[in-house]
Amino acid sequence: MARIRLGMVGGGNDAFIGGVHRIASRIDGHFDLVAGALSSTPEKAKASGEALGLDPARSYGSFEEMAEAEAGREDGIEAVAIVTPNHVHYPAAKAFLDRGIHVICDKPLTATFEDAEAMAQAVSASKSLFVLTHNYTGYPMIRQAQDMVASGVLGTIRIVQVEYPQDWLTGAAEAEGVKQAEWRTDPERSGAGGAIGDIGTHAYNLASFVTGLKGAELAADLQSFGAGRKLDDNAHILLRYEGGARGMLWCSQVAPGNENGLRLRVYGDKGGLEWAQEDPNYLHYSPFGEPTRRITRNGAGATEASTSVSRIPGGHPEGYLEGFANIYTEAAEAIRAVQGGQSRDAVMGKLPGIAAGLEGMAFIRACVASAQDNAGWVKI
Amino acid sequence: MARIRLGMVGGGNDAFIGGVHRIASRIDGHFDLVAGALSSTPEKAKASGEALGLDPARSYGSFEEMAEAEAGREDGIEAVAIVTPNHVHYPAAKAFLDRGIHVICDKPLTATFEDAEAMAQAVSASKSLFVLTHNYTGYPMIRQAQDMVASGVLGTIRIVQVEYPQDWLTGAAEAEGVKQAEWRTDPERSGAGGAIGDIGTHAYNLASFVTGLKGAELAADLQSFGAGRKLDDNAHILLRYEGGARGMLWCSQVAPGNENGLRLRVYGDKGGLEWAQEDPNYLHYSPFGEPTRRITRNGAGATEASTSVSRIPGGHPEGYLEGFANIYTEAAEAIRAVQGGQSRDAVMGKLPGIAAGLEGMAFIRACVASAQDNAGWVKI
Amino acid sequence: MARIRLGMVGGGNDAFIGGVHRIASRIDGHFDLVAGALSSTPEKAKASGEALGLDPARSYGSFEEMAEAEAGREDGIEAVAIVTPNHVHYPAAKAFLDRGIHVICDKPLTATFEDAEAMAQAVSASKSLFVLTHNYTGYPMIRQAQDMVASGVLGTIRIVQVEYPQDWLTGAAEAEGVKQAEWRTDPERSGAGGAIGDIGTHAYNLASFVTGLKGAELAADLQSFGAGRKLDDNAHILLRYEGGARGMLWCSQVAPGNENGLRLRVYGDKGGLEWAQEDPNYLHYSPFGEPTRRITRNGAGATEASTSVSRIPGGHPEGYLEGFANIYTEAAEAIRAVQGGQSRDAVMGKLPGIAAGLEGMAFIRACVASAQDNAGWVKI
Amino acid sequence: MARIRLGMVGGGNDAFIGGVHRIASRIDGHFDLVAGALSSTPEKAKASGEALGLDPARSYGSFEEMAEAEAGREDGIEAVAIVTPNHVHYPAAKAFLDRGIHVICDKPLTATFEDAEAMAQAVSASKSLFVLTHNYTGYPMIRQAQDMVASGVLGTIRIVQVEYPQDWLTGAAEAEGVKQAEWRTDPERSGAGGAIGDIGTHAYNLASFVTGLKGAELAADLQSFGAGRKLDDNAHILLRYEGGARGMLWCSQVAPGNENGLRLRVYGDKGGLEWAQEDPNYLHYSPFGEPTRRITRNGAGATEASTSVSRIPGGHPEGYLEGFANIYTEAAEAIRAVQGGQSRDAVMGKLPGIAAGLEGMAFIRACVASAQDNAGWVKI
Repeated sequence: MARIRLGMVGGGNDAFIGGVHRIASRIDGHFDLVAGALSSTPEKAKASGEALGLDPARSYGSFEEMAEAEAGREDGIEAVAIVTPNHVHYPAAKAFLDRGIHVICDKPLTATFEDAEAMAQAVSASKSLFVLTHNYTGYPMIRQAQDMVASGVLGTIRIVQVEYPQDWLTGAAEAEGVKQAEWRTDPERSGAGGAIGDIGTHAYNLASFVTGLKGAELAADLQSFGAGRKLDDNAHILLRYEGGARGMLWCSQVAPGNENGLRLRVYGDKGGLEWAQEDPNYLHYSPFGEPTRRITRNGAGATEASTSVSRIPGGHPEGYLEGFANIYTEAAEAIRAVQGGQSRDAVMGKLPGIAAGLEGMAFIRACVASAQDNAGWVKI
Repeated sequence: MARIRLGMVGGGNDAFIGGVHRIASRIDGHFDLVAGALSSTPEKAKASGEALGLDPARSYGSFEEMAEAEAGREDGIEAVAIVTPNHVHYPAAKAFLDRGIHVICDKPLTATFEDAEAMAQAVSASKSLFVLTHNYTGYPMIRQAQDMVASGVLGTIRIVQVEYPQDWLTGAAEAEGVKQAEWRTDPERSGAGGAIGDIGTHAYNLASFVTGLKGAELAADLQSFGAGRKLDDNAHILLRYEGGARGMLWCSQVAPGNENGLRLRVYGDKGGLEWAQEDPNYLHYSPFGEPTRRITRNGAGATEASTSVSRIPGGHPEGYLEGFANIYTEAAEAIRAVQGGQSRDAVMGKLPGIAAGLEGMAFIRACVASAQDNAGWVKI
Repeated sequence: MARIRLGMVGGGNDAFIGGVHRIASRIDGHFDLVAGALSSTPEKAKASGEALGLDPARSYGSFEEMAEAEAGREDGIEAVAIVTPNHVHYPAAKAFLDRGIHVICDKPLTATFEDAEAMAQAVSASKSLFVLTHNYTGYPMIRQAQDMVASGVLGTIRIVQVEYPQDWLTGAAEAEGVKQAEWRTDPERSGAGGAIGDIGTHAYNLASFVTGLKGAELAADLQSFGAGRKLDDNAHILLRYEGGARGMLWCSQVAPGNENGLRLRVYGDKGGLEWAQEDPNYLHYSPFGEPTRRITRNGAGATEASTSVSRIPGGHPEGYLEGFANIYTEAAEAIRAVQGGQSRDAVMGKLPGIAAGLEGMAFIRACVASAQDNAGWVKI
Repeated sequence: MARIRLGMVGGGNDAFIGGVHRIASRIDGHFDLVAGALSSTPEKAKASGEALGLDPARSYGSFEEMAEAEAGREDGIEAVAIVTPNHVHYPAAKAFLDRGIHVICDKPLTATFEDAEAMAQAVSASKSLFVLTHNYTGYPMIRQAQDMVASGVLGTIRIVQVEYPQDWLTGAAEAEGVKQAEWRTDPERSGAGGAIGDIGTHAYNLASFVTGLKGAELAADLQSFGAGRKLDDNAHILLRYEGGARGMLWCSQVAPGNENGLRLRVYGDKGGLEWAQEDPNYLHYSPFGEPTRRITRNGAGATEASTSVSRIPGGHPEGYLEGFANIYTEAAEAIRAVQGGQSRDAVMGKLPGIAAGLEGMAFIRACVASAQDNAGWVKI
């Protein structure tokens, strides 16, 4: 099967997430990166394109230029990955959506809620797919966790504990030339959310994805522990879900010893589940009153929900990149299905899209509003 | 050295915590149990006394009788352990304090805040020691954690994450003849707090003990998931400490797969610490930017703060009973010091006493008030 | 029930294992230590007796003196704990066995095989009980493991992996005034086995205890890595069991990072079991083709075999001292049964005795013989 | 940079390892799979090629045909991956080596020692690179472990414990249609080694790779526990290294609960290291007398040796496929260097090649010889 021609906006030499998207797009062999506007600085864009072996004619100085040019080529890109700082998501996505090019966009959806609503309109007005890389939903054992909750083995869900601690902003990284730290602590480029936007949205999304629960209201105590930091770097959040389940969400960028500690625990009246992103090949299932089972990816206890998105046998660990690749592979399948004539809505499957993006933005908005009201309760 | 003559109120045959106190009192050989009012039912009290080999003459039908009789004996008890349901703590403690008998009392302090204040007065009016068995503070690695925080290696404390999940009330244990479940879910005997009183006070106390921080205010979302249950069985709590540190406390009795999952994480601007009660011989210390160290009890990295309350070499696990025994042993030392003429205030050392008890009661009161105000913020 | 009057040989102030025996004897309240010959140096013996609060008249300068005197008292000791270096085990045990005093003796049985045979004769000639403190067999989850193997859930046992790494002799501790290190590396006091005697016998015993398998032959590659060290400090051993199961045993005192890493894994044609001494409250059971179950002491999945020797609920960790105390408590029950007229052989239950001791000595002998034959195969 | 044109021998639809090689070759974007002889059955080969999107003209019925045809094309393959059962390794590799095509070959080197020696000659006679995919050496933390040993932080290595348990042959998988099981238990296709060839060689190689030690002699007790199984499915091996270090190697395919449990522990007189393949992002380092450090891939404590072969930040787990991809990426760099004129010997870097392959075959040969001599000592 021919590979899908992919472009990329952002993701130049010194960015982390661009490289991740590129690897994820390659792992299962469904995409070829053939064009890019890899940096907002045209020289950097060129240099990055060269380093990646792009045809210099298709290494563009801006996403507008790229959208225009690629839409005009017969062999133009079929899809684009947008991996810029948040404030660029909307204009870039719109440029491609408007031209019928499928969009794979990093999270959070946008920097502002206004942009988010505009993004929703742009998606609505387009026939192209819009995929938001809430990549943690691509982990096989997360798929199995979702399936187990849906199957009822946990009973009625009562409690959702989700946390996402990191430590990389414990010091003043933004003042020490760490590019990631610079834009992620800058409201102009990140939007109103710091930790809550960068990682809190992942945690919130993951909890909803696995449990199927819809957040009703929250109370958020946000802190900026870093000296002079404008955005939150730690958030303590109480959650109330529709139907009565309750939750806690903690995300932090200032918790020394935590690298990328996304962890989800879900408890119902019949059983509990635990999963940790740093040990992602295992799902711990505790039927009430029985010993905890360690279910392994593609191993004993694994079901179709997880094996269908696994590549190698149990005991051979898959990781972050494979989970991310699952999103790309499902996006490839969806793109081909749409190209084959299927309706856009029929092909999204488990892929996160504009709806998940809006939920994330509503989460950020509610957190900020709650924080401004002394961490009072706010509808999501 | 002669053993201290100990009496016990509560702790009859079918109680859990009475047995724990008895073992804890024996481990280091400082106490001899010589008298008891082991049940509120006189026949059960007698039977339990017999089973424990008590002199029948000193196996009493009520704590009042025991206090009266023992105070009149030349070889009467020097100290008493009170291990009854919460509502009996105050009247029992007062009976002994008033007669100059030292009191070792289970937590929480009392069932009501009124009793707590009366207890404080009774302690104040007595010259006897009052020790509250917040036993988790007796774990060696908790002592070392406290010492490390005090020494400043973590820098300024920013974040406190403490949780205490259990699962034993997932079903309707109180309707199935589980005695523990019956009184712990009964407001008459437990007071206004369910999970928050039984285990939340432990978690709150432990966090304060280790960090030295004083709770300023909290917001508590309390749930009673068990059908018809009158007291909370799950609590999600946001904490604000004096000085600006923030925290989260989760306690639950309905989280399947969790047996006794007390766990504390503390983060400052220079480092982090993690400790888990179910794996208590290890303290995980993460200096920011360096690999996490696994400090082992009486092993490499252990300091005087922990080795002084350890009995056996690293790798030979000590557990819950040894941590509990540390409280008893320190109580014995304090009792002997008072008997030797030292002032009561000078001998408490790290022992939890009336102040910790009042803090726990203030915590429960604030949680209940917050819950009644839709989990709004309440001063502690 | 009246406590059993206990004496102790060895276990003076600076010894580790004496303190362990004393605590173990106290935990369940079945013994009172009333006499001792606590050191081979009479002054130290007196000082240690004083520190322990012994009646000075019953703090003896030698075990011979103590055996003589106590046997002559109406309130003389009923049992004695022997916790000396290995070469004293036999003469001390014999002195008490000959006088009808029950013996609880530390392992390995003796320093030499000749002494071991003499010990067997002394036991045989006496009516008193002889208990060898292979304390690791007292851990509740080891009891459950034994029960599970016996029940057949693992099928036919094929493979036994047992290891016991420590690191305390990595340097030259015996030259640095560490008393434990001095005698344990001295053939005069330890016998022919270094690591194999001190910890290898525990590992070998534990594997046999759990599997019920009898060692047929072994090949042992012994090393003395410590400069000038006369006894082995590391042993690599292949095992062949009667019936065809095969095993590996590794014990080491020179493996940095290992404190007391006794660990047993057993595999049959239907399932596997794993247990680690440093995390003793859990037993990991893997039915072939199904997820691994974490069985917890006194928690979900625990059976009578383990709950009957547990004191507190799951999630409240018991440790080394409680496992050791189970041996003492079962010894107390056996002593009372014998005192009540039952035959000695009928009351040993799961207690390790002279047979286990002889097996350990045969293991040491075979290891040494194999090592002398270039690690060739030797019958055990 | 243009991708390297890659062919593949073996790796048809139902094989596991072919898919692994394909993903590994794609992850870093250095290879394009353009030709294949994917099965020994021509129809299957065609079907597999079609499924993979190969040009039908370059999907060959046999490796001979492919070698011939590709060598004659201007755009012919530059390298070939050989992922067949062992007995095909040599003839296939020779066909390509003789035509100047670089070879990336799965392990073990060959089915027989005769083939191994012939392979060595074929490599010697060719100017092409020969890379053996001992993929576990590609794990970043293994690279760091190697570097730490070489740097001397562990001191003189004394003890090497390596194990590789699996459970997939616990039952009679070879009789139940599991293709993997069929050929791996068949001496005709696997050679004289069962578990020792399939996984024992990995374990032996990994220990040598990390420690830099050369095996001197071994004693191997091999078992075939599976009914009617011709090759070993469990091996217990004692190792003696040149210079005096001693080791143990256990590999098994019949240990229920173990999926792919490769684990290495190395101890010197100054410290110890532990690494487990199923948790590969962490390296545990224990300087003697200090707390164990958890070094994380691309996180705190990670050095150039590991960060240079890592893609994403600490806490974002990389797994088996990324470790495997490191071998492919280094092979690509070596191929380009050779194409650029560098000598073959100068470019292998840390890549395993013919020497590692011969060592693995010598290991298998020694194991088999030892087993035939009642597990006596045999020079490697």
